[in-house]
Amino acid sequence: MKKIRVAVVGTGFMGKAHALALRAAAAALEDGPAAELATLCDLDAGVAREKAGWWGFAGSTDDWRRAVADPAIDAVTIATPNATHREIALATLAAGKHVWCEKPMAHSLEDAEAMAAAAASSARVALLGYNYVSNPVLFAARRLIADGALGRVFEFRGRFDEDYLADPARPWSWRLRRAEAGLGAAGDMLCHLVSLALLLVGRVERLTGMMETVHRRRTLRDRPGETAAVENEDVVHALVRFAGGATGVMSSSRVAHGRKNLLRVEIHGERGTLIFDQERLNELRLYEADGPEATRGFRTILAGPLHPPYAAFCPAPGHQLGFGDLKTIEAAHFLRCIAGREAPFVGFADGLAIERTIHAIARSAETGGWVTVG
Amino acid sequence: MKKIRVAVVGTGFMGKAHALALRAAAAALEDGPAAELATLCDLDAGVAREKAGWWGFAGSTDDWRRAVADPAIDAVTIATPNATHREIALATLAAGKHVWCEKPMAHSLEDAEAMAAAAASSARVALLGYNYVSNPVLFAARRLIADGALGRVFEFRGRFDEDYLADPARPWSWRLRRAEAGLGAAGDMLCHLVSLALLLVGRVERLTGMMETVHRRRTLRDRPGETAAVENEDVVHALVRFAGGATGVMSSSRVAHGRKNLLRVEIHGERGTLIFDQERLNELRLYEADGPEATRGFRTILAGPLHPPYAAFCPAPGHQLGFGDLKTIEAAHFLRCIAGREAPFVGFADGLAIERTIHAIARSAETGGWVTVG
Amino acid sequence: MKKIRVAVVGTGFMGKAHALALRAAAAALEDGPAAELATLCDLDAGVAREKAGWWGFAGSTDDWRRAVADPAIDAVTIATPNATHREIALATLAAGKHVWCEKPMAHSLEDAEAMAAAAASSARVALLGYNYVSNPVLFAARRLIADGALGRVFEFRGRFDEDYLADPARPWSWRLRRAEAGLGAAGDMLCHLVSLALLLVGRVERLTGMMETVHRRRTLRDRPGETAAVENEDVVHALVRFAGGATGVMSSSRVAHGRKNLLRVEIHGERGTLIFDQERLNELRLYEADGPEATRGFRTILAGPLHPPYAAFCPAPGHQLGFGDLKTIEAAHFLRCIAGREAPFVGFADGLAIERTIHAIARSAETGGWVTVG
Amino acid sequence: MKKIRVAVVGTGFMGKAHALALRAAAAALEDGPAAELATLCDLDAGVAREKAGWWGFAGSTDDWRRAVADPAIDAVTIATPNATHREIALATLAAGKHVWCEKPMAHSLEDAEAMAAAAASSARVALLGYNYVSNPVLFAARRLIADGALGRVFEFRGRFDEDYLADPARPWSWRLRRAEAGLGAAGDMLCHLVSLALLLVGRVERLTGMMETVHRRRTLRDRPGETAAVENEDVVHALVRFAGGATGVMSSSRVAHGRKNLLRVEIHGERGTLIFDQERLNELRLYEADGPEATRGFRTILAGPLHPPYAAFCPAPGHQLGFGDLKTIEAAHFLRCIAGREAPFVGFADGLAIERTIHAIARSAETGGWVTVG
Repeated sequence: MKKIRVAVVGTGFMGKAHALALRAAAAALEDGPAAELATLCDLDAGVAREKAGWWGFAGSTDDWRRAVADPAIDAVTIATPNATHREIALATLAAGKHVWCEKPMAHSLEDAEAMAAAAASSARVALLGYNYVSNPVLFAARRLIADGALGRVFEFRGRFDEDYLADPARPWSWRLRRAEAGLGAAGDMLCHLVSLALLLVGRVERLTGMMETVHRRRTLRDRPGETAAVENEDVVHALVRFAGGATGVMSSSRVAHGRKNLLRVEIHGERGTLIFDQERLNELRLYEADGPEATRGFRTILAGPLHPPYAAFCPAPGHQLGFGDLKTIEAAHFLRCIAGREAPFVGFADGLAIERTIHAIARSAETGGWVTVG
Repeated sequence: MKKIRVAVVGTGFMGKAHALALRAAAAALEDGPAAELATLCDLDAGVAREKAGWWGFAGSTDDWRRAVADPAIDAVTIATPNATHREIALATLAAGKHVWCEKPMAHSLEDAEAMAAAAASSARVALLGYNYVSNPVLFAARRLIADGALGRVFEFRGRFDEDYLADPARPWSWRLRRAEAGLGAAGDMLCHLVSLALLLVGRVERLTGMMETVHRRRTLRDRPGETAAVENEDVVHALVRFAGGATGVMSSSRVAHGRKNLLRVEIHGERGTLIFDQERLNELRLYEADGPEATRGFRTILAGPLHPPYAAFCPAPGHQLGFGDLKTIEAAHFLRCIAGREAPFVGFADGLAIERTIHAIARSAETGGWVTVG
Repeated sequence: MKKIRVAVVGTGFMGKAHALALRAAAAALEDGPAAELATLCDLDAGVAREKAGWWGFAGSTDDWRRAVADPAIDAVTIATPNATHREIALATLAAGKHVWCEKPMAHSLEDAEAMAAAAASSARVALLGYNYVSNPVLFAARRLIADGALGRVFEFRGRFDEDYLADPARPWSWRLRRAEAGLGAAGDMLCHLVSLALLLVGRVERLTGMMETVHRRRTLRDRPGETAAVENEDVVHALVRFAGGATGVMSSSRVAHGRKNLLRVEIHGERGTLIFDQERLNELRLYEADGPEATRGFRTILAGPLHPPYAAFCPAPGHQLGFGDLKTIEAAHFLRCIAGREAPFVGFADGLAIERTIHAIARSAETGGWVTVG
Repeated sequence: MKKIRVAVVGTGFMGKAHALALRAAAAALEDGPAAELATLCDLDAGVAREKAGWWGFAGSTDDWRRAVADPAIDAVTIATPNATHREIALATLAAGKHVWCEKPMAHSLEDAEAMAAAAASSARVALLGYNYVSNPVLFAARRLIADGALGRVFEFRGRFDEDYLADPARPWSWRLRRAEAGLGAAGDMLCHLVSLALLLVGRVERLTGMMETVHRRRTLRDRPGETAAVENEDVVHALVRFAGGATGVMSSSRVAHGRKNLLRVEIHGERGTLIFDQERLNELRLYEADGPEATRGFRTILAGPLHPPYAAFCPAPGHQLGFGDLKTIEAAHFLRCIAGREAPFVGFADGLAIERTIHAIARSAETGGWVTVG
């Protein structure tokens, strides 16, 4: 099978995650096509060269446009700051290449709309890097719901909390300026919640939201004693109504001490309840209202080979997949989408739905009323 | 020390809880005054007599007015359906007697206001039965917050879910009719969340709410095949802003399969996070942002003699108090309030604040906008 | 129904527990006979008088022999230091009265044998205060096992750890001298494990044990700078073989930092696994090897009214019983044994089996080989 | 830096784990040398060829001797059935090549001794695949202990339970015959416990053990109705005394329903307690006996970049490593040992200590007494 020649743009947290995942995908899944790590791009040519060496890329460049234009490249993955997503994605699609872009999709709703439009009018794959949806236990959760294990689903409870800005002494950065970074906790974190809701319950139709900046000024890293304003939200909440009739709540904080990656969803249905928590990503908790009532309770289900594609990583249950393995599943999904064997999820159209949801929260937080999602 | 002669009105779940708690209070706390179980009231004279026998009351009656009028009675406790609270409470206060009334305070906001007004113009103790606030680990939580362990508190996350109506086949009852029962999950459950918020964070000032009746009709118990409408909400949510500046979210469901008594609060502050869960009422979880970062984490603190008045029940930590013990602490508090040694919490004025909060949610759920709490 | 007139001997942790439990038993269970708190005994007449006042005893004395001899007393409960159990129990039975004696049964194996012999030749009730066996979820566990939910049971894992002597600076006390206190962690704690094993799996037949004194000397409270030897064990382990064929392990430590009451048992059978943990005494965890394999997992079952006699304390599940409630169930059991309606468990014959087990561990720890339990 | 040319022998669970880990090691750790996947060996040439394709090996063979003899190969990894470990390892060392051999080390104590002797007289790296010791949180645990966070360590509690043979209907296999497979739960599982004890507490000096075969006969897969004897143990226990003075207990079962990978250790010291559980491999629980007593409790520490080399996989805490990531850390360790930059752990000499421990348990289980470990 012909390898897919990939350029990765960006060498930070997500650039490396893309590189390692593309490297491992076909080997782990034993299913093709495989990726060929063709070019690694970073604005700093030295960094690009060094990382390309470690990660196993054939070449490197400090100009992503060169990679996009290169006829030897089939696909481009984007792991750069949000504000650049639109330009790189549009150029990639325009060049007739497949694109895998990290979340959040874009820096503004306009950008996201432009990207979705470009993807819609292209025959290429356009995938977003919502990595948490690529979890075997969430695939199992979706099947359980589809098979009626919960009966009619009517309630979604979601939260995603971290503490990376919890320390009030953490200095100011460009990520806290709305013009450059866009939304705060909503753009960085709550969007993940919406992606899980999309996977398990469907689209949000109406909502009312609230945003709060807890630590309103932070000190400048380079100018001790001086501070700058934090322009985007530390905490965001929304009450939501789904198109399918369910209701729910979503909350996200980037200032919640002790929370490292607390992406947790709980779904209530007529016949049972299901819980997932990213800090224990190999577990699913399920309550089914059947069997003798005296011994009912939440079951903690451990991920195992009965939850595909877990077995690609380990044939024994309880051995635990990691964050990188989920990214590998996502990379394999990208490659199979390119081969025409799967349909992208979270695709750019889904991504736009997510962006519309979080921007609707921002709109509602300003006006104070319920709003309809785009 | 003179005993307080008490009449208990009602012989259901809460009537028994009052009786056992009053019986145990001074003996457990070794602190007076003690209660004398004078009269037990039930509309059914036979039930009143039988239960009075088991629970140790000196007498019984089928007419609570007789008990209220009896000069040998010092205090009356109310454990009857909500719609009767106002009448009994007003009569008790008018008779110059102390009153301990189960939550929810009243069946309507008007009733609650009348009760609070009567209490305000009386010199008697008027206490509400919000039992969950009488927990040694919550007393410890309040002290921790007051002592600054969390720094400035800015976020409250609360939920209270049960599944007593989760089964769609559970038949209709009068509790589902708004005229008789008032609010649904808000009136029965979310009010507890507000009581915990009151204890730990303060009063809610503004909010926006959502209510949903998931199972809209239920079968009539006596007429198979026929159904009646469910008039109050199964699920309620609110986004809230506290007077002190904190924000937060409160959710409650009576149709959440697997949840038996999931009253859970989580409080975020500048220096740490605190979690309490009523299904594990002897535990407090605390994250403090100090010490070496590599070994930080949530601590699970087990209730023990260092958390007064735990030691009154057991001198050894980890031995676990129960629901009844919390009620005993509440009864002792009532008796000490009567003796002038403590100030009632949750008193009728606090209770009115709680009622105003849940009725504001109902109002907001109708209008769809933010509302100010009374 | 005639009340049972009870004298309680001892006013410490367990004396109070007996008093409160006897006071509450018939009222909570609504089932007779009730106890009449006749006399409270303490060597210090003032303490006896004061506590009698708080706890509701009709009288008090500084001489337990007077209570035992008093024809107005039907039953005596013993909550005194271990070394006195034999004398008081034998006197009580000799006086033709029922006895409820706290665990551990006795200070030596000889004492336990004498007590069991006296009980065997008496027509009176002789019960031991192994409080943890009186838990509704353990009654449920026993029924599950009896009903075959686990299939053939073949493995018992038990541990009971606390940290009351974990601090090396905790001063020396008479409890650490073998002549006065007998065994250490085995006598105080591991005996509870054996009582749970007795309830759920049966009698231990053969075993090999190990004992260790971790902190070998402790400072004298009154003579700073001086130390005395710790003569009994801080830690004890045993590998065991049950009469019914199961194998297992039991461990106990009184120097395990962070453990407050970690009495935990896990039972493996051909069809499933069951776990109980006293620090979360309202929960049972059960794994059943049936249903679709992809959704199997341990269920956390919350105590509720389906687990008798939970409903006597609360009609709603998940509300949590406490240590005192278990003691109340035990007191009610004592009273019903006296009324001839139940058979005592843990009775003196069972208690002797427990004592023989822990003393066999001590014997094995000295000889280093497997020993047969008396 | 020159790449290390590696041959992997075996294509099962562990063969794939080695391949993926070697493939990822230098890329993830960004630290050399890197491995070159030179040759994959399997007795079935077709399987070898197909897997070599997926996993990225340059070549394949059905004869491991060819790979061992090939001068273009620097190192050989062994992921074949236990009975073949000795022969391949000795041949590899004899050929002057480095060896990484999966656990258990060998099929018999004699084999293990021969392998350790060969490694001792060789200048090559000889590493064993005890994958669980390569966990960032266990590295952190070891540092905590070394730094005195627990004070003197005196107690080790270990268990490793799975349920892969819990179903009595699971058919007989060669793994249940002592001549072919050697020990049962001790050889397959308890050895991991010993490896963790070695990492954290040191060597076991004396022990007494018990072994039990719970399901004594199993049906033959190919001959329905016929059964064969299970010759090795389903369950194993040992009481142990470490060379450093600590005591403890180790248990392992392969028939414990619901347990998938329950490798759990708990270590008690004078100043605190530490717990690790492989089913939640990104968590460490730590109790430290300092700070205000009223807020002490076990802390749940989530793995993060402060626990090297976690950051190589992800710069954000709480994102979870997986089983494969631990294997990658182990592979990187192997490569760095070859480069002379680290000393192998678990090396063949350590492995022999582990083998001696589990064989001492077997010896003790037969004789019934305490035995000294080799």
